[in-house]
Amino acid sequence: MPPNDLLVRLEHVGIAVRDASVTLGVYEALFGLRPYKVEEVSSEGVRTYFLDAGSTKLELLEAIDPESALGRHLATRGQGLHHLAFQVPDVDAAHARLESAGFRPLGPVKEGADAKRIFFVHPKDTAGVLVELCSDRSP
Amino acid sequence: MPPNDLLVRLEHVGIAVRDASVTLGVYEALFGLRPYKVEEVSSEGVRTYFLDAGSTKLELLEAIDPESALGRHLATRGQGLHHLAFQVPDVDAAHARLESAGFRPLGPVKEGADAKRIFFVHPKDTAGVLVELCSDRSP
Repeated sequence: MPPNDLLVRLEHVGIAVRDASVTLGVYEALFGLRPYKVEEVSSEGVRTYFLDAGSTKLELLEAIDPESALGRHLATRGQGLHHLAFQVPDVDAAHARLESAGFRPLGPVKEGADAKRIFFVHPKDTAGVLVELCSDRSP
Repeated sequence: MPPNDLLVRLEHVGIAVRDASVTLGVYEALFGLRPYKVEEVSSEGVRTYFLDAGSTKLELLEAIDPESALGRHLATRGQGLHHLAFQVPDVDAAHARLESAGFRPLGPVKEGADAKRIFFVHPKDTAGVLVELCSDRSP
């Protein structure tokens, strides 16, 4: 039987932001939302702010390094919706399965924010949406 | 006491698609997801496909009229992430509150897909993200 690595749920929506203090003000004014966690992922050159949107998290992504992938994305595409992250039970099995199915993972499984192990799939393979798959890091 | 119109939860993520059959193939290959509902909103010139992503729905949006707002968006911006929809208890109260707070709703509350009443807020007011607010239509 193949490993069960299929979707559990939409874990978060990633949003690229130029200035997190401005965007945080927007979500507080819209819905009274405030971040419950702020975390830097230095290897990716980003600072992340997590908001609890009831069923799903919002992850605001601010570049701390303008030469990071996110910094370049902000420079060329501007701020706004950035990626969808789907939680799966086994991110390693999902990586192997999707690679076999012809998807192009953007590198191997790696450490992400919020105690996750993650990988991304090239948006050219996913109808223009940058898709992240993630699992909880083992305790 | 002001009306309680604050956020309940992220209700869905809207994704603009050029050809729904291609995108549906992607989500089936990724996660075994298939649409549980297909609905045309003729007034908006769109066909919508709903996928159940566990905690939140994905709403694939296909233009049935190239001159619709979505058709023009696809022509100029291409396919990909389009909007975030937040469910609130009272969409009319939210419209009034946000307008008073200086946000620019894109028109009045109107009928949307999936038995919702909805309005959008201009992405210039929401850090580059097109935000929809929605409530269930009264039975």
